[in-house]
Amino acid sequence: MGFRAAVAGASGYAGGELLRVLAGHPEVEIGALTAGSNAGTELGEHQPHLRVLAGRTLAETTPETLAGHDVVFLALPHGQSGPLAAELGDDVLVVDCGADFRLADPADWEHFYGSPHAGTWPYGLPELPGARAALRATRRIAVPGCYPTVSTLALFPAFAAGLAEPDVVVVAASGTSGAGRAAKTSLLGSEVMGAMSAYGVGGVHRHTPEIAQNLAAVAGGPVTVSFTPTLAPMSRGILATCTAKARPGVTAAALRAAYAGAYAAEPFVDLLPEGRWPSTAMTLGANTVLLQVAHDERSGRIVVVAAIDNLTKGTAGGAVQSANLALGLPETTGLTTLGVAP
Amino acid sequence: MGFRAAVAGASGYAGGELLRVLAGHPEVEIGALTAGSNAGTELGEHQPHLRVLAGRTLAETTPETLAGHDVVFLALPHGQSGPLAAELGDDVLVVDCGADFRLADPADWEHFYGSPHAGTWPYGLPELPGARAALRATRRIAVPGCYPTVSTLALFPAFAAGLAEPDVVVVAASGTSGAGRAAKTSLLGSEVMGAMSAYGVGGVHRHTPEIAQNLAAVAGGPVTVSFTPTLAPMSRGILATCTAKARPGVTAAALRAAYAGAYAAEPFVDLLPEGRWPSTAMTLGANTVLLQVAHDERSGRIVVVAAIDNLTKGTAGGAVQSANLALGLPETTGLTTLGVAP
Amino acid sequence: MGFRAAVAGASGYAGGELLRVLAGHPEVEIGALTAGSNAGTELGEHQPHLRVLAGRTLAETTPETLAGHDVVFLALPHGQSGPLAAELGDDVLVVDCGADFRLADPADWEHFYGSPHAGTWPYGLPELPGARAALRATRRIAVPGCYPTVSTLALFPAFAAGLAEPDVVVVAASGTSGAGRAAKTSLLGSEVMGAMSAYGVGGVHRHTPEIAQNLAAVAGGPVTVSFTPTLAPMSRGILATCTAKARPGVTAAALRAAYAGAYAAEPFVDLLPEGRWPSTAMTLGANTVLLQVAHDERSGRIVVVAAIDNLTKGTAGGAVQSANLALGLPETTGLTTLGVAP
Amino acid sequence: MGFRAAVAGASGYAGGELLRVLAGHPEVEIGALTAGSNAGTELGEHQPHLRVLAGRTLAETTPETLAGHDVVFLALPHGQSGPLAAELGDDVLVVDCGADFRLADPADWEHFYGSPHAGTWPYGLPELPGARAALRATRRIAVPGCYPTVSTLALFPAFAAGLAEPDVVVVAASGTSGAGRAAKTSLLGSEVMGAMSAYGVGGVHRHTPEIAQNLAAVAGGPVTVSFTPTLAPMSRGILATCTAKARPGVTAAALRAAYAGAYAAEPFVDLLPEGRWPSTAMTLGANTVLLQVAHDERSGRIVVVAAIDNLTKGTAGGAVQSANLALGLPETTGLTTLGVAP
Repeated sequence: MGFRAAVAGASGYAGGELLRVLAGHPEVEIGALTAGSNAGTELGEHQPHLRVLAGRTLAETTPETLAGHDVVFLALPHGQSGPLAAELGDDVLVVDCGADFRLADPADWEHFYGSPHAGTWPYGLPELPGARAALRATRRIAVPGCYPTVSTLALFPAFAAGLAEPDVVVVAASGTSGAGRAAKTSLLGSEVMGAMSAYGVGGVHRHTPEIAQNLAAVAGGPVTVSFTPTLAPMSRGILATCTAKARPGVTAAALRAAYAGAYAAEPFVDLLPEGRWPSTAMTLGANTVLLQVAHDERSGRIVVVAAIDNLTKGTAGGAVQSANLALGLPETTGLTTLGVAP
Repeated sequence: MGFRAAVAGASGYAGGELLRVLAGHPEVEIGALTAGSNAGTELGEHQPHLRVLAGRTLAETTPETLAGHDVVFLALPHGQSGPLAAELGDDVLVVDCGADFRLADPADWEHFYGSPHAGTWPYGLPELPGARAALRATRRIAVPGCYPTVSTLALFPAFAAGLAEPDVVVVAASGTSGAGRAAKTSLLGSEVMGAMSAYGVGGVHRHTPEIAQNLAAVAGGPVTVSFTPTLAPMSRGILATCTAKARPGVTAAALRAAYAGAYAAEPFVDLLPEGRWPSTAMTLGANTVLLQVAHDERSGRIVVVAAIDNLTKGTAGGAVQSANLALGLPETTGLTTLGVAP
Repeated sequence: MGFRAAVAGASGYAGGELLRVLAGHPEVEIGALTAGSNAGTELGEHQPHLRVLAGRTLAETTPETLAGHDVVFLALPHGQSGPLAAELGDDVLVVDCGADFRLADPADWEHFYGSPHAGTWPYGLPELPGARAALRATRRIAVPGCYPTVSTLALFPAFAAGLAEPDVVVVAASGTSGAGRAAKTSLLGSEVMGAMSAYGVGGVHRHTPEIAQNLAAVAGGPVTVSFTPTLAPMSRGILATCTAKARPGVTAAALRAAYAGAYAAEPFVDLLPEGRWPSTAMTLGANTVLLQVAHDERSGRIVVVAAIDNLTKGTAGGAVQSANLALGLPETTGLTTLGVAP
Repeated sequence: MGFRAAVAGASGYAGGELLRVLAGHPEVEIGALTAGSNAGTELGEHQPHLRVLAGRTLAETTPETLAGHDVVFLALPHGQSGPLAAELGDDVLVVDCGADFRLADPADWEHFYGSPHAGTWPYGLPELPGARAALRATRRIAVPGCYPTVSTLALFPAFAAGLAEPDVVVVAASGTSGAGRAAKTSLLGSEVMGAMSAYGVGGVHRHTPEIAQNLAAVAGGPVTVSFTPTLAPMSRGILATCTAKARPGVTAAALRAAYAGAYAAEPFVDLLPEGRWPSTAMTLGANTVLLQVAHDERSGRIVVVAAIDNLTKGTAGGAVQSANLALGLPETTGLTTLGVAP
């Protein structure tokens, strides 16, 4: 048990998943669990699936309760991470599952979030070119958004291989846990079961500039992204359908080779054999990305469909994966690729 | 009870929905119910939700059993409608819910279906320009596919108003009833619940040329369509996210005006008030299309999200709507816009 | 359009279902729609599936806004119906979907609801012996609870035929709409999807004495009822498994004959053919009860499994069925037995 | 990696779950994977969630392919285990997830299964009195059925403490994976989503005598069991509502004390704190039983509600738990109590 970890926001969905992953992590001891309005209550009231921690009491989220840990995971509404991190000491590894430090461009931040930009931390997507070196050297990690995780991994190899034009359309369906645990009428089971619905249409979703930023870094120039998220009647999972205009001369074989090459050595990303298609159910509880590629000759577009568990690879698993690097551990420590299915 | 109707394929999902709609139709008397391998069994074994018809026995699907009706609805695998229709007499209204007569271009048909083209019948989407006149004058109707119904209605007003470039990307999520009632492992409840999955990726789905054909007719020239269907964990409903590149100078106001104008008098298509988004659950069992439009200035795309019940407006309700026209009835006869929610 | 109807509580689930049924009722014109905290908003914000009423504004629930109607449907929290009804005039038909006037025994009321008993109105379950005459003669109707509706119809014929001992165990699974529309964390889609859960265990659910009261009236003596409700991952529907100890000498044939006889002439209750079992999906949106009976010789118990749509036959459809009687209309007016399936 | 394990029936749901658990087991190396009609295909076609094993080819299920392992898990239709086990050698640990060797009474077997009784093996429910000693000493284990696992654990402490009369009613709702992976129309997603349905009503389900046998052993005399299984719209999980007539003088405190005592030291069974109720979602993928007890004074019944994952504690996790004992390993090796939620 080399490292002592705190989790802020332990009563929410991201916090619960962090705890589920950390409780099975051989090199981590779980320290403080903190919350906002749920401070003072037992974790078991909120996360009854985590029996080993059920009797723990939630402290308030403050610099004091979070002090004295080797690593602090923040699962908080945006705007709260910066001030907390400033109090935590430069030697503490701070892993922010919120949005505050993901974007490099202050103008993008202000356009989409309507508040001053807090800064930029190393981006916790180890599969991106150059990311691992940066993550090994940092004490601050900005965990990607769930949609940007899956969309970026679905499309960056096409850009890296020079196969795609910077004209991207992403439509993704997410389980409802992505919308968080706040009690809203629109998220009641009665409303969401049997329903596919839209929200954040027209490029207004805050993950849009993050996807564009990631792809632009690989493409070496701006990438136009039309992103539409939808809500699916399931608790977990994202299926992202990601298309980009194909450059002239692209072939299905070249496309497949680009992805096979990009992900041959990646422990958590699987290009499925031809003829098989990803399903979110296959990633449940696993830190896995499953994807398949196609070249649509008639429309001239590359189509990549990718599935993740939004709470695991899309949030908590991805966070631990990056934290492992920063802590000097093997990247896969404590993470599984075994999905819970059916 | 002016008209006597037969339904071929009565034990499947489309057939069941036809019967549900027709059983409440004030001008239709339900005559022969036919089936393939289920011939000889009681309808109640297959459609226990239709209590008033539960004791009826299914006949075999033959020209003889379908003879003697004013209108024959066909809910059959493609390839079977043409030969049957040829035997039914020119004065009988034949409404084909299958694909055989939807496409005008034999090359498209052969490319996507791999068999000789059977011909082209008037297309049963009354909301399209000129469609009502053609439907009032015909004894043969090709009911549109479920995805083409929702995608066409989502995008054609943008083309009709000259606002869209012919560069279209459609990603749609369908309930599992769209995949039919054949017993396949991949469609088991255990597999589909909690799962969003892909199939037919890369422009290979057979509804692709149908969407392109419909939009091209309005646009006055070819339209490139990238279409990806996905499967959602619900029995019914399609949510289609439809984007087209915006022509220079398009504004959100112009876009909204185009849709408001196109659908002001349509009984079954609703442009939602600003700020509300379609959910498939709102269309359950209703012949309704709910849609919302957005102009994404940053990506330069028009985004239209539309919801239908794939079995009602997407199949059986749409079929009855067109049949009403051909029978000289008010178009809305026997059809409801009241969805069953929550 | 003989009768003008008001609906109080129009923004909730019961209210929405009342409106869905009434909007298709040929003898009813929909008048005032009222609400509590949602007063002043458009109905379309809350019930977007009811397009024909979407633009109507909700008034506040007061005696004044509800005045001037032939029939007033109340879909309100318990405790509110009595005072309102007292102001509405004896000639107005008041149909209360709440619990206030269901129980005859003030002690039962006070034990389970913890407040003084408001009184007893004719009970709106027309299928019970003697109920129709009472309903035809009243201006006040207490609509049964959803669980009592299905449990009573599942078991009373066994008591009426003298086949059952007064030892009853009912376990029922309800869709989440039965828990109402209040925004609670425990009812979020993320919590309820993929989950069967318990609540109200140990005979504490308020529908327990109502079931016992109904069966006792038929049995001619007290009936002991152990009732456990559970929550199922679906929006609508109740499946009730209802068992009673069999009297000595009971046979499967006698049991079946009792139910066949009891329901032979009932328009909304179907004893399924042997070998078929009820599914809630078959009753969706319909005013139907589907049931099947079995005699378990080894355990000596009668087992009846019954399915309804909790919002239709279990609430709004049942309310309209009883209201039809009180209004002198055919009992089936405006009600369908066509379920929406699959 | 002390032990080499084979799994027969690797392409089904029980087989897949066995592999998921075993792939994370620190003392087990996965050897042969066998199947029936799927022999010759890749595991990844059937279990795409198990990426580490996806490329493994399924052998045919024969004594030869299963030879040479320390432990053989059988996940086969009943009737196949006996002949296979006879060929496997007495020193090989054979763990049968099928029904063949669960029942002690040949008459019960023949009544419910209609074939000759194969025999009786030590019963793999370690929490039962005396079970651990038997399991440590055996090379043959009969894994309990999923319903008997949860029902027995829900009720035996009441019998062990002398609080219950031998009059039991169990109603349980299972996810669809309990019905297996055979492609049947009635199990299609379109049929089961949004549906609670009945099957096996009237005491005919084959798990009935198994529950009765388990409880009788603790009660010291015959126990009458009325058991009704139902199917819930979820892939995994069982919620069992188990009631027994209370003996005179039973109190809520005595009941709670009996359960608290019975399960104080059990690693996989949790009596929830008062006021919290089990949900199947809290057990997903975990080897956990969550239960809560109540005493219903008015009806005189003890009510216990219990939740498990039917594939984990109900099948594969339970199998590994018992196998650990037989292999001389700590009972909890390779098993988690961390559920995947929400």
